[in-house]
Amino acid sequence: MIKKIEHIGIAVESINESLPIFETLFDTCAYKTEIVESEYVKTAFIHIGESKIELLEATHNDSAIAKFLSKNRAGFHHIAFDVDDVMEEINRLEKKGFQLIHRLPKRGADQKTIAFLHPKSTNGILVELCQDI
Amino acid sequence: MIKKIEHIGIAVESINESLPIFETLFDTCAYKTEIVESEYVKTAFIHIGESKIELLEATHNDSAIAKFLSKNRAGFHHIAFDVDDVMEEINRLEKKGFQLIHRLPKRGADQKTIAFLHPKSTNGILVELCQDI
Repeated sequence: MIKKIEHIGIAVESINESLPIFETLFDTCAYKTEIVESEYVKTAFIHIGESKIELLEATHNDSAIAKFLSKNRAGFHHIAFDVDDVMEEINRLEKKGFQLIHRLPKRGADQKTIAFLHPKSTNGILVELCQDI
Repeated sequence: MIKKIEHIGIAVESINESLPIFETLFDTCAYKTEIVESEYVKTAFIHIGESKIELLEATHNDSAIAKFLSKNRAGFHHIAFDVDDVMEEINRLEKKGFQLIHRLPKRGADQKTIAFLHPKSTNGILVELCQDI
């Protein structure tokens, strides 16, 4: 079951430059920054209600964020939904015809197991499902 | 004060075609559709936790959504934040150097007064502030 918006992922050229914009907008500070080595990204998280804003900066040219920013301007990257059971959701959505990028969950930032749906089947939106570990 | 993500606005070619995708994804139904004559848009809203997904379809070529879809594929359009007092936030953010599209609030969908920030000052993200009427 999808419970809430867990976070909105925003691709940035530089967390050092962009984080102050969002901290000023929300009048609050990031509660953590984290480097996800496996994804070649540096992240910063800000709480907003029950959800979060996740800023994503590439740490390597092979990062999905570097590839995104080579084709698009900085801005919205993905939306993540909190689920009870990511494997159950993968199975449910696959049966309904959604195209999965990951058919098995993998480890993500912020102590989650995650899986992405392909934007082709979700109206152009890159959707992440995530479950607390 | 910005309290929570009020909604994520998603531009679609056709609500009739796209709404079933999101209803299946969230395993729930839209709680309302609304035509906003002044904006030339048809909208559909789905609850997800304390937030909503708003699908936006143009009803006229002069609609901001029609213009968006002439330059971009269907997908993420804007993110709206719930605020206590939209005029107070406009003043606060203007003083901090944010560029406002609307310096005075206007009437939006779903019984709100709203104002947009220009994506130039918000890392490429079109940001809406909205307050319950």
